[in-house]
Amino acid sequence: MNEIHPYVILVEPQLAENVGMAARAMMNCGLYHMRLVNPREYHLSDKAVAASSNAGEILEKAEVFGSTREALADLQLVMATTARHRDQVKPVYTADRAAEKLNQAGARGINCGILFGPERTGLHNDDVSLADAIINIPLNPRHCSLNLSQAVLLAGYEYYKTQISAPAEQLVTNHGTPAEKDKVLGFVDYLQNKLSDCGNYKIDGQREKLEINLRNIFTRAQITEQELNTLYGAVNYLSKGHSE
Amino acid sequence: MNEIHPYVILVEPQLAENVGMAARAMMNCGLYHMRLVNPREYHLSDKAVAASSNAGEILEKAEVFGSTREALADLQLVMATTARHRDQVKPVYTADRAAEKLNQAGARGINCGILFGPERTGLHNDDVSLADAIINIPLNPRHCSLNLSQAVLLAGYEYYKTQISAPAEQLVTNHGTPAEKDKVLGFVDYLQNKLSDCGNYKIDGQREKLEINLRNIFTRAQITEQELNTLYGAVNYLSKGHSE
Repeated sequence: MNEIHPYVILVEPQLAENVGMAARAMMNCGLYHMRLVNPREYHLSDKAVAASSNAGEILEKAEVFGSTREALADLQLVMATTARHRDQVKPVYTADRAAEKLNQAGARGINCGILFGPERTGLHNDDVSLADAIINIPLNPRHCSLNLSQAVLLAGYEYYKTQISAPAEQLVTNHGTPAEKDKVLGFVDYLQNKLSDCGNYKIDGQREKLEINLRNIFTRAQITEQELNTLYGAVNYLSKGHSE
Repeated sequence: MNEIHPYVILVEPQLAENVGMAARAMMNCGLYHMRLVNPREYHLSDKAVAASSNAGEILEKAEVFGSTREALADLQLVMATTARHRDQVKPVYTADRAAEKLNQAGARGINCGILFGPERTGLHNDDVSLADAIINIPLNPRHCSLNLSQAVLLAGYEYYKTQISAPAEQLVTNHGTPAEKDKVLGFVDYLQNKLSDCGNYKIDGQREKLEINLRNIFTRAQITEQELNTLYGAVNYLSKGHSE
């Protein structure tokens, strides 16, 4: 996890509410440094703070600049988010690749920034030309317009993913881990014996097939020991009904 | 690219505006099938349609159900989005892994759905228990609450990424591709000769070091042929100033 995270630079945001929502999205993604270039509305207005949810702290610490150039003067690597293709010679990274680059740069102590344009128009070509690279967020080309906070969220989300090592896949249990195979298969045996007792297993060929099916069902389900007890109870309850 | 995309199922959404914004996020991600379980407000209200931006079509085609169970009755693989850990035994996938699973299932013709809970509370435990798996969107644990449309956007974005094969990194140019090395290095030679002419290259040791630096600068920049012409022009203009 980097010590230095990218600055989020909003160029000429129009509505204070959108600045607040962008702050909320930043907080979601563990980004805390906001810079504003000529915001049209006051970024600490009640509207902005309300829209930020609990991210008022980011708004309070936000720095305001008179030009994009000043806002990125002390930064070393700047990427511009833009949906449209620009008539500029510039490397373009998908959001995930851009996040990798920002993460690697941050790990080397390089100060990075991500530029976001005004709500309606996106970044001016002049501002794009100040950036080292363009971030392209892959979206439905028929409908790729995002509001400001959503653009911040997607770029920030990709960056956040580089900062964590969440297991991509896990089993969450209330009590412990999946039961040992011996216990699961023991239950399947028990179930089959009970089924035999009920007279459902008259034909041997069928029994074999059912055995395989039952084993597959109960092994695939990654059952916990506690759940096995529940199943034993259910089987016992059911088999009593039949034996009476 | 799959023929069958996951259904987005909003359980008891409170505000029509949020349903509209969720539709917009779906459209961003190429998802067109919306299902609503007991929406509190009318999903085709003016507010909803306005919030959907140009995704009114999704709202018009949305299906409304009286229970979550009915809304997923004809689906074969359902994943529930939830930020909180649930006291349920269930596989948990990060959003990107979940997207892979949904993509693979869709490719096999399996009907999938993604469940989203009401704005304030998230999904009820009952609804989570109906799902095959839980989707966890990795976000700052200190501040992971998302609004509904943002949750739809992030889950949908990860799914959309599985549907495309965008190059992660490319150079976008206005005219053609990077110039051939011979031309770039030829320019560097030309520049050095001009610098020599100006008398800046008196010391041979320095010249060698500068040659390497200049080559690195201009090769790293992936200059196009058109840009080389611009640079030749600039060098010529500058050297004229000195020779006068």
